[in-house]
Amino acid sequence: MSKMEEYIRLVENTLARQDILEDPKELYEPISYILGLGGKRLRPAMALAACDLVGGDVRDAMMPALGVEVFHNFTLLHDDLMDKSEVRRGKKTVHKRWNANTAILSGDAMLVKAYEYVAQVDPTVLPNVLKVFTKTALEVCEGQQYDLNFETREGVTEEDYLEMIRLKTSVLLGAAMKIGALIGGTKIANADRLYRFGENIGVAFQIQDDILDSFGDEEKFGKAIGGDILNDKKTILWIYTAHHGGDDITAVMQKNFSSDSEKIQVISKLMLETGARKYAEEKMDAYYREALAALNEVEGNSALKLELATFAEWLIKREK
Amino acid sequence: MSKMEEYIRLVENTLARQDILEDPKELYEPISYILGLGGKRLRPAMALAACDLVGGDVRDAMMPALGVEVFHNFTLLHDDLMDKSEVRRGKKTVHKRWNANTAILSGDAMLVKAYEYVAQVDPTVLPNVLKVFTKTALEVCEGQQYDLNFETREGVTEEDYLEMIRLKTSVLLGAAMKIGALIGGTKIANADRLYRFGENIGVAFQIQDDILDSFGDEEKFGKAIGGDILNDKKTILWIYTAHHGGDDITAVMQKNFSSDSEKIQVISKLMLETGARKYAEEKMDAYYREALAALNEVEGNSALKLELATFAEWLIKREK
Repeated sequence: MSKMEEYIRLVENTLARQDILEDPKELYEPISYILGLGGKRLRPAMALAACDLVGGDVRDAMMPALGVEVFHNFTLLHDDLMDKSEVRRGKKTVHKRWNANTAILSGDAMLVKAYEYVAQVDPTVLPNVLKVFTKTALEVCEGQQYDLNFETREGVTEEDYLEMIRLKTSVLLGAAMKIGALIGGTKIANADRLYRFGENIGVAFQIQDDILDSFGDEEKFGKAIGGDILNDKKTILWIYTAHHGGDDITAVMQKNFSSDSEKIQVISKLMLETGARKYAEEKMDAYYREALAALNEVEGNSALKLELATFAEWLIKREK
Repeated sequence: MSKMEEYIRLVENTLARQDILEDPKELYEPISYILGLGGKRLRPAMALAACDLVGGDVRDAMMPALGVEVFHNFTLLHDDLMDKSEVRRGKKTVHKRWNANTAILSGDAMLVKAYEYVAQVDPTVLPNVLKVFTKTALEVCEGQQYDLNFETREGVTEEDYLEMIRLKTSVLLGAAMKIGALIGGTKIANADRLYRFGENIGVAFQIQDDILDSFGDEEKFGKAIGGDILNDKKTILWIYTAHHGGDDITAVMQKNFSSDSEKIQVISKLMLETGARKYAEEKMDAYYREALAALNEVEGNSALKLELATFAEWLIKREK
C-alpha cells in the first residue's frame, strides 16, 4: 500500500468515527449522508502528506484535513442545488432526497462544521491556518459564481475558464497542502511551494475531469459521458473548438440536434478534429510539469516527495 | 448620547468603511446590499459594551463585533429564502431582487466573511473566541431547523418554542457579549455571566417581537401587523391560546376565514381573551429579570452595567 493510500485509509477511518448525528436530525442527517457517499478523499490525504513530508506528525493535521473534506462536500451540496443536479456518486443529491431548504440549511451547518474541524490545531499555527482556509473558502465561492456567470455569458475565453477552475477547484487542493505543511511546522515559503504544487495539480486534475466528461469510459468514469456537451458548458474543449473550428462552428455547436446522443457525437467529433482534445491534454501536461517543478523546490522528505509526484501522475492519468 | 448609542454609531461608521465589493460583483453586491439595509446593530454594540465593561479596549473588539453582525445578516439572507419572504426592512429580499442561486452563494460567502472578521483578534484569545462563535453558529442553524419543523409539526409546546427561539435568536446575543468580554480580557466565568445576560435578554427580545407582530403599531413596527397569525406561526401567543381557549379553540384558529383581516382580528382577540398576551408579557418580564440578575453578578464598570440594564429595558419596551 502506498503512503497516499495509507493516508486515505486513515482519513476514512477517522471520518467514520466522527459523531455528526445530533439533534435536530433533519439538520445533521444530510451532512452525514453526503459525507458517507464516498469520494476520493484526495484533499485530506494531501493535507496529511504535506504535514508528513515537512516532518510533522500527521495526527496533528487530521482534524483540519477532515475540515477541508467537510468544506469540499459542503460546496458539492450547495452546488448540486444551484446546478439542479439530481445524482451525486450514484445516489440522490441532498435537495432531491430531502428538499431545497434542507440543502441550504444543512449546507450552512456543514460550513460551520468545517471551521470547527479546521480550528482544531495548535494555537501557534491557528491564525495562519485560518487565514489560508478563509481566503480559499471565499475563492471557491468566487469560482462557483464565475461558473454560474459563464452559463449565460458569451465570449468566455480560455483565460477566463482557467481562472474559474483555479478558483473553484484548484485553490482548495493548494490550501490542503499548505495547511498540512503549516501544521507540520515548516516555514511559510516552503508551505507556499506545496500550495503551488496542489494548485497546479488541481488545474490539471480539472482539465482531466473535463476530458473524461466528454471522452471517458462511462463504466469507469461512473457517470454519463457528454454531460458538459449537452449543457454547452464552456470547458477548455468547448472554447478551443469554438475558436479553432472556422467561422460557423459556434452555430453548429449550438444548433438543435435531433437527440442528445447526436449532439454528443457531433460535438465530441469536432473536439477531436479541431485538435481541442490534444490541446487540452498538452495544457494539462504543462500544469502537471509546473506542479512537479514546485514540488522539486520543496524542502522535506525525499521519499514522500517522490510519492506525491507519483500521486500527481496518477491524478492526471486516471480514468475515473 | 448614551454609551450604547455611541457604540452603535461606532459600528455603523466602521461598517460603512468596509470594502466588501470585490470581483465577481454578482457575489459581493448582495452582501453589501443586505448589510446596507440597516437594522439596529444590537449585536455588535453589545459586543463592544461587554469589552468596555470588563476594562478592554473597544477597538480590539470591533472586527469580531462586525463578524457577529455579518453572521446575523447572513442568517437573515438564507432564512428569507427558506421562508420565501419578499420584503426585508422595506426593501426586496436578496432572492427576490436577484435570484435563489445568488441568495445561496452570496450567503455562503457571507458566512465565510463573518469568520474572517471574527478571527481578527489577538491570537491569545482566538481559540476561545472561535469556540464560542462556532458553537453559536451551529445552534442558530439548529434553531432555524426547529422553526422550519414547527411549521408542519403538531403539538409544539411552550417549552419547544422557548428552546427554538433561544437557539435561533438568543444565543447570538449571548455570544456577542461573551466574545466582547473575552477580548476585553476577563475570565471565562465573568464572560459567561455576560453571556447569560445576553441570552436571557434575547429570549425577552424575541417574545416582544412576537407581541409586536400581533399587537404592534404598524407605523412604528415598520411592517404589516398579523404576519405570524396569518402564517399560523406557533409563537408563545398561539401556543398559549390553543391550550387555554377551550376544546374547540384550535379548530377555530385554523378555520378558513373570509379575509386576512378577519383572521387577524378574530385570533388577536382570542389572544387577549385567553390571557395569552398578558402571559407572554409576564414571561418576557421573567427573562428580563433573569438577565438583570446575571448582569448584577458581572464584575466590571458599574456605570456601564447600569447602561446595559437601561438598554435591556428599552429592548423589551420598544415598539419597533
